[in-house]
Amino acid sequence: MKKKKKKPSEKIPLIALLTDFGSSGWFPASMKAVIKQILPSAEIIDITHNVEPHNVAAASFILESCYRDFPEGTIFCCVVDPGVGSKRKRLAATDGSYFFLAPDNGLLTSVELRSEIWLVCSIINQDMMHQGPGATFEGRDVFAPAAAHLASGMPIDSLGPLYRDMERLDLWNPVKEGKYSITGHVIYIDRFGNLVTNITQEDLPSSCDPARIVVAIKKRKIRGISKSYSDVKPGEPVLYWGSTGRLEIGVNLGNAAKVLSAYLGESFILNLKESYQ
Amino acid sequence: MKKKKKKPSEKIPLIALLTDFGSSGWFPASMKAVIKQILPSAEIIDITHNVEPHNVAAASFILESCYRDFPEGTIFCCVVDPGVGSKRKRLAATDGSYFFLAPDNGLLTSVELRSEIWLVCSIINQDMMHQGPGATFEGRDVFAPAAAHLASGMPIDSLGPLYRDMERLDLWNPVKEGKYSITGHVIYIDRFGNLVTNITQEDLPSSCDPARIVVAIKKRKIRGISKSYSDVKPGEPVLYWGSTGRLEIGVNLGNAAKVLSAYLGESFILNLKESYQ
Amino acid sequence: MKKKKKKPSEKIPLIALLTDFGSSGWFPASMKAVIKQILPSAEIIDITHNVEPHNVAAASFILESCYRDFPEGTIFCCVVDPGVGSKRKRLAATDGSYFFLAPDNGLLTSVELRSEIWLVCSIINQDMMHQGPGATFEGRDVFAPAAAHLASGMPIDSLGPLYRDMERLDLWNPVKEGKYSITGHVIYIDRFGNLVTNITQEDLPSSCDPARIVVAIKKRKIRGISKSYSDVKPGEPVLYWGSTGRLEIGVNLGNAAKVLSAYLGESFILNLKESYQ
Repeated sequence: MKKKKKKPSEKIPLIALLTDFGSSGWFPASMKAVIKQILPSAEIIDITHNVEPHNVAAASFILESCYRDFPEGTIFCCVVDPGVGSKRKRLAATDGSYFFLAPDNGLLTSVELRSEIWLVCSIINQDMMHQGPGATFEGRDVFAPAAAHLASGMPIDSLGPLYRDMERLDLWNPVKEGKYSITGHVIYIDRFGNLVTNITQEDLPSSCDPARIVVAIKKRKIRGISKSYSDVKPGEPVLYWGSTGRLEIGVNLGNAAKVLSAYLGESFILNLKESYQ
Repeated sequence: MKKKKKKPSEKIPLIALLTDFGSSGWFPASMKAVIKQILPSAEIIDITHNVEPHNVAAASFILESCYRDFPEGTIFCCVVDPGVGSKRKRLAATDGSYFFLAPDNGLLTSVELRSEIWLVCSIINQDMMHQGPGATFEGRDVFAPAAAHLASGMPIDSLGPLYRDMERLDLWNPVKEGKYSITGHVIYIDRFGNLVTNITQEDLPSSCDPARIVVAIKKRKIRGISKSYSDVKPGEPVLYWGSTGRLEIGVNLGNAAKVLSAYLGESFILNLKESYQ
Repeated sequence: MKKKKKKPSEKIPLIALLTDFGSSGWFPASMKAVIKQILPSAEIIDITHNVEPHNVAAASFILESCYRDFPEGTIFCCVVDPGVGSKRKRLAATDGSYFFLAPDNGLLTSVELRSEIWLVCSIINQDMMHQGPGATFEGRDVFAPAAAHLASGMPIDSLGPLYRDMERLDLWNPVKEGKYSITGHVIYIDRFGNLVTNITQEDLPSSCDPARIVVAIKKRKIRGISKSYSDVKPGEPVLYWGSTGRLEIGVNLGNAAKVLSAYLGESFILNLKESYQ
């Protein structure tokens, strides 16, 4: 990992925040305030603070979906932490292009899976922490200052020693059954009710015709992967590759989650038989 | 339209975002990330990402309500797009003071109606687009990069050729019936339940006494335009000129939408008879 | 109060916004737009715009909870204003370290209580206001420009004359009953359903053993102040010192407000008897 030698005029890296703190309290603001105390020129972008409370897997998926859109060097500060206050470690990691800060609860699994290089430190250096009023609030007192110190050019191992036993999530792996059938799951539902699945292009044999696959979900069958919603009639369900590279189930001008009464974790069968004929 | 010759120290224009992407996903963050990749010094302000999904008219009203508060040169990047993926064009427009990016679905109607100059280009130049991972996400891949390129000083027609057939919304025009009666509609309901109407000061004859007009809505009558909520008793409905220049119906220390059981699109009668007596 | 002599390169102070305008309209954006018109280099951080509408006490608590995390000189622009349009004054205040702008409705009580120095001006100087389109929108036309002018180095008394009769909130003071009993109240409920109380460490006698106090709320008894949620079983209620220095009631991996059916303002008895034994 390169250590940055920063010229005075060099642009400092962005800090991106991803939490489940919600948008009606002061927690995200306290994180930003502490970052600005340490590094007044810091630039901060909110990914979202509305991850479903304690849903580490959703945070992992959201991070996976956007981190490569950011400029190289961006520091992702992710705090979704059902085990706050327990003994779980606090991690700083890098894939050689980006930096990631998160509790050791699997949140970084999705990014690690896509990375060739992966280096993790356990954040223990008290000098890199903030002493806020009141009891410890790790977003403000541990993760925000770590982000500010990385953005100001400190090397990642100044936060603490190397660490090898990072927790990993059991992400929803598609299960192949025989030659023609794959069982998939809904891993995220967006604001419009579109169902994001755990199926990626790599899960489909290159020889199959995407226009002839069939997804069976909640007693409905959806045939063929379309290019856009408007390839089907209003109100009809549609399969398409989402902007994250995952197969999604939508409804043209409608809400797929409502139309199909589908929930997070819902399973479906992807049938390839016709796509070979 | 002037082309900007930017001195090195000149302030770059703001980019303002207006979408229906919601605040629980990563879509707005991906747009910002791409803007920062193209123009690291870009400054971005969120108008809101919580436009009701697919409600193009609401987005048009929100844009109308605030764009003139922004510094000249601001670039408004507006993505509310029920027809995403269809053949509808992607527009870049200017009124000589501001720049506007939006799908060709009527979103820009409200701004065009207030503009003397109005010039529109169709965004087709692939060199000005972003190649993100996954399928096309136009907010990230088309509109965000167009905003960044305009902010960095590119002329608007570098995005694509001039275009003359912009879609327009049928905005809710007040309907006059006889000399004394106007039928109006609720076009927006704000967070406090205040009802914004399609009536502006220009819809009232200059000779009428605003203290004596009567609005009849949902079997209630409200008399006279007040200066502020507190001109009426707590819990009582009140008419006033809202900060956007439109007639609004509120309730002092209460929620007019709830008190009056009024919905978006609700009609009412504005009676001028007493105001002439 | 020191007047700032700013060198050209000196960092301008942050402006932090706290309102009940919500996140689905344009009001916060209009405030930012006006600030950027007056001071293009202004840096703005949102605390939140989702204070419960008209809940001045909640805004006061949120401000108290985070303002000391911000760099010295930060200007807090707070608009939660059930009396907007009435005769109530608009205040600019300072504690010698920070600046605060708010309607004169008690919002600043919590900060004043913690301050040794406290100086208040009434904002009346029209030259420091913005003339927006439409009727007066004080967030945009009064408070935002005042924040921008303070950030650009104007002294606080340029906004208007000194003022001595600031409104104060009756904050929920804990009531001691006899030697062993304190009646407290829930003053805030966070996104996770944690109940923030009006009890601070100073309300407990230093001689008592915090591991043995008992809180009785809604027919449940909670014994002892824990270090973290995970000191109790999942689903069990737990007492702990929150990050704001206040006693909080949570539920490990759960939602205390739901588990205990507790509302804002809920009272409870804090019993110290066992903690002396």
